[in-house]
Amino acid sequence: MSEAEAVRVIGLWPSPFVIRVLIALKLKGVKYELVEEVVGKKSELLLRSNPVHKKVPVLLHHGKPISESLIIVQYIDEVWSSDDAPAFLPADAYTRAVQRFWAQYVDDKLTLTQLPPAIRILRGMDDGGKDEAVEQLSAALQLLEEAFVKLSQGKHYFGGDSVGYLDIALAVEKIAGVTLLDKAKVPNLVAWADRLCTHPAVVDAIPDADKFVEFSVTYGSSSKPTNGPK
Amino acid sequence: MSEAEAVRVIGLWPSPFVIRVLIALKLKGVKYELVEEVVGKKSELLLRSNPVHKKVPVLLHHGKPISESLIIVQYIDEVWSSDDAPAFLPADAYTRAVQRFWAQYVDDKLTLTQLPPAIRILRGMDDGGKDEAVEQLSAALQLLEEAFVKLSQGKHYFGGDSVGYLDIALAVEKIAGVTLLDKAKVPNLVAWADRLCTHPAVVDAIPDADKFVEFSVTYGSSSKPTNGPK
Repeated sequence: MSEAEAVRVIGLWPSPFVIRVLIALKLKGVKYELVEEVVGKKSELLLRSNPVHKKVPVLLHHGKPISESLIIVQYIDEVWSSDDAPAFLPADAYTRAVQRFWAQYVDDKLTLTQLPPAIRILRGMDDGGKDEAVEQLSAALQLLEEAFVKLSQGKHYFGGDSVGYLDIALAVEKIAGVTLLDKAKVPNLVAWADRLCTHPAVVDAIPDADKFVEFSVTYGSSSKPTNGPK
Repeated sequence: MSEAEAVRVIGLWPSPFVIRVLIALKLKGVKYELVEEVVGKKSELLLRSNPVHKKVPVLLHHGKPISESLIIVQYIDEVWSSDDAPAFLPADAYTRAVQRFWAQYVDDKLTLTQLPPAIRILRGMDDGGKDEAVEQLSAALQLLEEAFVKLSQGKHYFGGDSVGYLDIALAVEKIAGVTLLDKAKVPNLVAWADRLCTHPAVVDAIPDADKFVEFSVTYGSSSKPTNGPK
């Protein structure tokens, strides 16, 4: 495989957004090279490949860069399709729109990097009422529980029988260890998370999930160490 | 046309996000009914159709609701395709990804509703250094100018010969009168904006753009009237 043909991912291994991309590539059976950044530095390759945001992940395909994790996941879905690798997004336009809606909801409300106040408070990065923060996140998870019931239609994933776009989008939260999943309140989501974390593509993409969670907690609290979770 | 077959848009006419949806429907030649909300109230139909965000626009198609303007635009593109109505997103997966990247950039950096600090400052809604705010927005527009040159390849629109996904996404800014376009710095973007605003689909969707701009300025400053633009 020449360099121009290779698939490379510029990443930083504990980034949950990078993990979205790795899961997507594993699901499609695409071989890739992970080009790792060093925390606190930005490589010349990263700066050249994503000059606008200067952030991982970046997918390099035929040497051409694509940024933003959910856009990369859609690109992977569109470029690598086969009978062995079901599409991440369903064929039906309405269901596609609904999956996109919830993926955007996850990015807006539930990802640590976007730093919604509720998550910042719970991670000790901002001051604020913990009860209210728990309530906000519980409400968000409750909505996702209901969305799961509707979209999965009794099957294993948001995408039905196979891991789909929204499964990949939400994987971030489970893997980053910030979901606060309460089995009594969101039983379907808890079962979904357990299934996802033992899926071969996810296990392949994240060989050591425990290590990741630990790093995530430390890293997440680093901006305010005196108040952060230990 | 029965109610179940009808296309309805729950909107509020000065919302630039609603206008994205109307432009997309006009471009595809889809007849729709605009169901107008009243400022400061939320109809029972809106609350039922978009219970998560409770915001316009909502597209109702066969009675089923779709929310979030860029997701609606993609839905319209996928559902109504014909030779008369070119696709908003190009066939090439890489160019699709690039258009999606910039559309997300517009939503993150340039839309008034998302309220990035620079725009808030310029609109008199937040206190802060105006010079710095102008610099931030100029930098963003410069990036879009460069993106236009690459994507349009000497043609009229980001989408090439026809108005595409990114054209529709960015239309918001031109129409909301907050672009601060400087012909010397972003000549291609200024020419693009002039072309877009005289495109029949845009003229049809916004019969009275001047009125819109005026409302937008008043409405935008309403949260801080003593400091707002008059």
